[in-house]
Amino acid sequence: MTGTPHRFLYRVRFRECDPMGIAYHVHYLDWFEYARTEALRDAGMPYKAIEDGGLTLPVTHLEIDYKESARYDEEIIVETTPELSASTVRISCHYRVLKAENEQLLATGRVDLCFFDPKRGRPVRAPEKVVKVLSSPS
Amino acid sequence: MTGTPHRFLYRVRFRECDPMGIAYHVHYLDWFEYARTEALRDAGMPYKAIEDGGLTLPVTHLEIDYKESARYDEEIIVETTPELSASTVRISCHYRVLKAENEQLLATGRVDLCFFDPKRGRPVRAPEKVVKVLSSPS
Amino acid sequence: MTGTPHRFLYRVRFRECDPMGIAYHVHYLDWFEYARTEALRDAGMPYKAIEDGGLTLPVTHLEIDYKESARYDEEIIVETTPELSASTVRISCHYRVLKAENEQLLATGRVDLCFFDPKRGRPVRAPEKVVKVLSSPS
Amino acid sequence: MTGTPHRFLYRVRFRECDPMGIAYHVHYLDWFEYARTEALRDAGMPYKAIEDGGLTLPVTHLEIDYKESARYDEEIIVETTPELSASTVRISCHYRVLKAENEQLLATGRVDLCFFDPKRGRPVRAPEKVVKVLSSPS
Repeated sequence: MTGTPHRFLYRVRFRECDPMGIAYHVHYLDWFEYARTEALRDAGMPYKAIEDGGLTLPVTHLEIDYKESARYDEEIIVETTPELSASTVRISCHYRVLKAENEQLLATGRVDLCFFDPKRGRPVRAPEKVVKVLSSPS
Repeated sequence: MTGTPHRFLYRVRFRECDPMGIAYHVHYLDWFEYARTEALRDAGMPYKAIEDGGLTLPVTHLEIDYKESARYDEEIIVETTPELSASTVRISCHYRVLKAENEQLLATGRVDLCFFDPKRGRPVRAPEKVVKVLSSPS
Repeated sequence: MTGTPHRFLYRVRFRECDPMGIAYHVHYLDWFEYARTEALRDAGMPYKAIEDGGLTLPVTHLEIDYKESARYDEEIIVETTPELSASTVRISCHYRVLKAENEQLLATGRVDLCFFDPKRGRPVRAPEKVVKVLSSPS
Repeated sequence: MTGTPHRFLYRVRFRECDPMGIAYHVHYLDWFEYARTEALRDAGMPYKAIEDGGLTLPVTHLEIDYKESARYDEEIIVETTPELSASTVRISCHYRVLKAENEQLLATGRVDLCFFDPKRGRPVRAPEKVVKVLSSPS
């Protein structure tokens, strides 16, 4: 999964657009969740499997830079590049949002998540399987 | 709590408005949840207490009639009149959404919820306390 | 478009699930919007074209009956059957939400929209093209 | 408005909580919008007045660090400290989210917005009134 970013195709919904006629800035974070979920699924490691294994993946940090607006009914590509920290406790997902039509860059972002054990109440190392998937070339 | 409806004052948020410059129709249901939560709290029976007692309150039916638009930054009143069914298994909340400025009617609606026991996997009678609160005049 | 319902395949998102671990009831209305948009697009009449023609399509009424819960990461089918009123001023969309795996019925619903001319401030008849599409067998 | 941060009291809603039973991370950004709107209103400069003056205020950058979870029905305080850039083209809002009960720090964040003239299609200096409000001690 290292190297090539995962691509998620999405169409901007009416409910996501604001009185300026453009996608409301907060919904980019929803798109990041959708893209991340599909990136993990396509890598053979669905988020639900991590959860069923007793761990959760809370978000610890996020940031976005907005370049251009996404408009109603427009198709966009959300690129996800996950990166495991050296300790394997944290995944950083790096994002680029592109207009599907011409690959114009609309936004860049990053979301950090940590593997968390709710029973012990603290961050833990990633499961072996996750480490294998995120270390192998995609 | 029978008789006089509970009033919840709310200001329409930017994120709730769509490209037509008005509140997106789905958010009325969010307002119903906010108003219902405060109506139950003010009646001395917070939703959280019902949940802590081991029951949930899933929505089984809802309906809305939209009359006029609610606009960005406008203050509205959400009126809730809860009504317990004869069997006490179901609460029907009757709603009116009014423009705060002149009490113009914007929408009417209804949301039905049932008392549900997740352990037994089926609807149950309302707890004694709820019956008492919802049967006494407000 | 009369007769056979349009089918929209969707996967329940994490952000749509509540502390009961199931899809929060309000999001069904979001899914109805997504399904309606794709039903109109597939019928050769994208919502954006109606809007570009100077009309809007506000929701005037909606209702849902919930039968069973939709769960996180589950695939669902949202069936839309649009029906034009005799006056052509209103479209009623009839919905069924099914579990994709076994077509178990999760919910039924209806959303009414009217063709509205913002310049004249009142409901109007549907454009000729819409009448043609919605009257022909699908 | 320089100096003392503005405080916005809020109660976490059921619809904002996820299957982990805590507020879904994206909703913190919604709270930032609510708090910012009230901070500007209390400073005598409602967002709507800026918009009515022909300008918009798109978000250009945001970031959040999450420390502890906010739980269902819990009261939180969202502190906003707005800061005008030297060129007056940009406002940076600095945020702290606190548990109301004991002022425990739940999250910190920042949202940058720029004054934008949609007719000229480019960022512009802040209106005189905004400069005055944001430069005076609160």
